[in-house]
Amino acid sequence: MSQRADILPSWRPGAVREAIIDFLDQSASVPTADRFACFDNDGTLWCERPTYVQFDFLVDELKTRVAADESMAEVPEFAAVLGGDMAAMGELGLPRIGFALTGLFEGLSPQEFTALARAFVDRASHAALGRPVRAIVYQPMLELLDELRRRDFTVALVTGGGTEFVRAISDDLYDVPAELVVGTLIKYEFGRDGDDRPRLRRTGALLGDANEGAAKVTNIQTQLGRRPILAGGNSGGDREMLEWACTGDTPGLAILIDHDDEEHEFRYTSTAQTFAETEVITDVGARLGWTVVSMANDWDTVFPAL
Amino acid sequence: MSQRADILPSWRPGAVREAIIDFLDQSASVPTADRFACFDNDGTLWCERPTYVQFDFLVDELKTRVAADESMAEVPEFAAVLGGDMAAMGELGLPRIGFALTGLFEGLSPQEFTALARAFVDRASHAALGRPVRAIVYQPMLELLDELRRRDFTVALVTGGGTEFVRAISDDLYDVPAELVVGTLIKYEFGRDGDDRPRLRRTGALLGDANEGAAKVTNIQTQLGRRPILAGGNSGGDREMLEWACTGDTPGLAILIDHDDEEHEFRYTSTAQTFAETEVITDVGARLGWTVVSMANDWDTVFPAL
Repeated sequence: MSQRADILPSWRPGAVREAIIDFLDQSASVPTADRFACFDNDGTLWCERPTYVQFDFLVDELKTRVAADESMAEVPEFAAVLGGDMAAMGELGLPRIGFALTGLFEGLSPQEFTALARAFVDRASHAALGRPVRAIVYQPMLELLDELRRRDFTVALVTGGGTEFVRAISDDLYDVPAELVVGTLIKYEFGRDGDDRPRLRRTGALLGDANEGAAKVTNIQTQLGRRPILAGGNSGGDREMLEWACTGDTPGLAILIDHDDEEHEFRYTSTAQTFAETEVITDVGARLGWTVVSMANDWDTVFPAL
Repeated sequence: MSQRADILPSWRPGAVREAIIDFLDQSASVPTADRFACFDNDGTLWCERPTYVQFDFLVDELKTRVAADESMAEVPEFAAVLGGDMAAMGELGLPRIGFALTGLFEGLSPQEFTALARAFVDRASHAALGRPVRAIVYQPMLELLDELRRRDFTVALVTGGGTEFVRAISDDLYDVPAELVVGTLIKYEFGRDGDDRPRLRRTGALLGDANEGAAKVTNIQTQLGRRPILAGGNSGGDREMLEWACTGDTPGLAILIDHDDEEHEFRYTSTAQTFAETEVITDVGARLGWTVVSMANDWDTVFPAL
């Protein structure tokens, strides 16, 4: 059994902490190859409100481009974003806006894109929380990832966000290497430079569907080839992945983060599309026996000390 | 510097062994995150002649099915394979035959497929070599993979074969976990069983293109997110990956296995499609400065002791 008092220090004593440590202790009898855990990123490992960090990155890049070429501000998608015009954004639709913003990086090499993403995350601040973006990660979840690895778990990130954006920060923020990040992919184009050396360039097109919902499960299988016995998430887009972690031969653990701490972060709910109705994801979790984490009650600290 | 005499014991002293150890020593100054090596599997890490092990597995499964249902032997693709009718197989074409054989596994769960592949590799023998299939791996390459990992390299397999087939054996034969295997993928279908629990089933369709040539480079980027500084291969299908390992900011090493040892294995050449002509891959390697490994001269032992 664990030295219970010595691990997961930012988790308050209670049923949730007990359930997690019980699961960790039980996993000692699971073969190492099966000790595999998958976590969503936005809203599960770091703050996703009021906007996704990746969206802030895209807007930041857009502003840099507009400063160099004012005519770009006239593109309808960009005008709506820059003006914060929610009505226009709603009318254009998020896919079209996302497509336009992603297109800003078309033609870049993977290394060039990674450098831009890292530079943004290094310099950006989260205004509402008054913290560097690097410090909006959830301290209790960092402790959980570390504890899992101490127990020979392989920890993967399974994000709805852009794979390359999350890979740019995963090693540094979460100790997760690039190959253990599964997200929404863009296509690359293979070509050759003037010296006939191969090169890769980003295109503006997605490779496959957005990594949300059932796609998280199929992409875990195709890209990682293992079934998790532990999964963590916070929204309807994580539902199938959380269920998937509980369908193996050994018991699984599904951890759902409930954003109920408006004092330290934000209070909001997410819905999950079930067969016939739309259901609040915490209700789904309660019905399916998931471990629902109250940020207000189960966490002693939300963010790392500055 | 290395204790040169103590490592890579199955590699004979000479220019190839020196070049590899020089590269390993130089890599000590490369950041750990960039120490990333990719290896082809068939013909690079284990024997691919006279037929691919995966093909033997497919035929083995076909024979099991035909024993249970003789009518299956009348399917033209299966009849050609079972009769060893090279003319008929040539007329039907390898893609169509491969599609028919892959279809044998349609509807299986990933776990069911993995169990079948492992059982085959555990029981099968390689007739011409007189060895268990598990022992047709190349001993010098196993030593190289181990030495790379001792030096904090991450080692990935980038195969033209089926991802799931290679994943079924990669941990056991090469100490490579499933998430570090990139190959030719089949699509999975997400569904739910009678208890409303999620399940994954194999389809008969490929996800994307076969993992050969330039696709190896784009798939390394999308699925693993790193650029190798060392790559190993043996055929035209590895050409772009080997070139890709030599285009980074730090020096790269491209290792090409030349099958010139008919005494212990098989003698054959492979061609690579270049811009205007078809060129023998060892000539491409010589022209581009790759490290071409003569199995006859550079290896003291080809296979592990039984």
